[in-house]
Amino acid sequence: MALAARIEHDGVRDEVAIEEPLEIRVDGKALAVTMRTPGNDDELALGFLVGEGLIARGAPRAAGPTADLAANIVEVQGPLLHEPAQRRFYATSSCGVCGKGALEEIAVLAEPLPEDGPVVERALLAALPDRLRQPGFEKTGGLHATGLFSTTGELLCVREDVGRHNAMDKVVGRALLDGALPFSNRILCVSGRLSFELVQKAVVAGAPILVGVGAPTSLAVQAAEDRGLTLVGFARGASANVYAHAQRVR
Amino acid sequence: MALAARIEHDGVRDEVAIEEPLEIRVDGKALAVTMRTPGNDDELALGFLVGEGLIARGAPRAAGPTADLAANIVEVQGPLLHEPAQRRFYATSSCGVCGKGALEEIAVLAEPLPEDGPVVERALLAALPDRLRQPGFEKTGGLHATGLFSTTGELLCVREDVGRHNAMDKVVGRALLDGALPFSNRILCVSGRLSFELVQKAVVAGAPILVGVGAPTSLAVQAAEDRGLTLVGFARGASANVYAHAQRVR
Repeated sequence: MALAARIEHDGVRDEVAIEEPLEIRVDGKALAVTMRTPGNDDELALGFLVGEGLIARGAPRAAGPTADLAANIVEVQGPLLHEPAQRRFYATSSCGVCGKGALEEIAVLAEPLPEDGPVVERALLAALPDRLRQPGFEKTGGLHATGLFSTTGELLCVREDVGRHNAMDKVVGRALLDGALPFSNRILCVSGRLSFELVQKAVVAGAPILVGVGAPTSLAVQAAEDRGLTLVGFARGASANVYAHAQRVR
Repeated sequence: MALAARIEHDGVRDEVAIEEPLEIRVDGKALAVTMRTPGNDDELALGFLVGEGLIARGAPRAAGPTADLAANIVEVQGPLLHEPAQRRFYATSSCGVCGKGALEEIAVLAEPLPEDGPVVERALLAALPDRLRQPGFEKTGGLHATGLFSTTGELLCVREDVGRHNAMDKVVGRALLDGALPFSNRILCVSGRLSFELVQKAVVAGAPILVGVGAPTSLAVQAAEDRGLTLVGFARGASANVYAHAQRVR
């Protein structure tokens, strides 16, 4: 599946990242619509559902396009662990909607990561973004990437998408299909910033280390601290900052 | 309201962008939860509702925090133009969910922009990102910005947020409160990439020109072409690409 479309601007030929809507259905019922780069839609749907706590990370299931391939609909086999509408409110009884509520939601979705896990050189983590293969980004400048790495820095899987979250969902969905979740001895690396939601997805997938090229947010750091995730930001070849659980960084 | 929080990493003091959930309520009923940087929540809620076509762009209305300021809830005075659940499906009768359906949704939300509008030098557009004041980004590296400019390049309003869309929603919401919509003789400039949703928000707010530091997506270019928006990407001081409606660029 092509990631880029040919266009013309200012009298020159160029390429832009493809963005199209996708409807995710479970047992025929529409659950969500996301803007994404077409391709690996089964992975995207499954990874999304894992990250939301709607399907178990240990149980691969069927997912694929509907009979009309042009329809941009991906159909996932149910059932879900709970009704989707019950979640995503980040509310606590004591203080309304807040960061504490968001942290409590992750706590419901995932046990804290084991304290020990792998220990990796800081220089290796800093170099991971350079090892992300991003052919789509090179053509268009418009795609985010997530890579799955071994603890020796080998790239095991990479996905590109116009949506930051989608790229990670696809990597997680691929692993679900391969029976490779949780990521107990793996490193996730993203091409952009580190938001709360990316930390949530990494934690639910069981990855002990998450690396980003960009900055983390306050809530990303808090969530990483709370769930035992090693959070590494501003990884730019020569250096990297460790924002949480530095015990896994040498 | 502070955009950044103090933290410590690697034994040094530093600052990160604040990310917290916000619940948007209309007449007491929860409509959406978004992760945002606190501050200007009334603008965020109103701009979001304008962009979704849920309130008219010509009619300012009351919006503000609930009595418990720590609750991260913003309350907007209703009624809405229609039920929110009826929208955001990007579906056409002929082909399921697709880009065409997404374009049709914008067409319902906004008339095409007037063909003429302002005409601006390309060099001025290329230089706008350098004129975006981004104190929060300078501290944290973790905030996106949207600026509203006059056609002579004067910065009229700027907002920063961890969410790209939120920064634009805040600028649009500010303008709604000031009775300054539609933006018929204004330029919007964003610090990042140009997605379909940002084009939608700019078109619905009536801005004839949208400039971004980063790349546009395929659907952003199509939507801009369709609605008459001048779309400018990769604006980086010395140069800029014009992807749609170049008649406003000299």
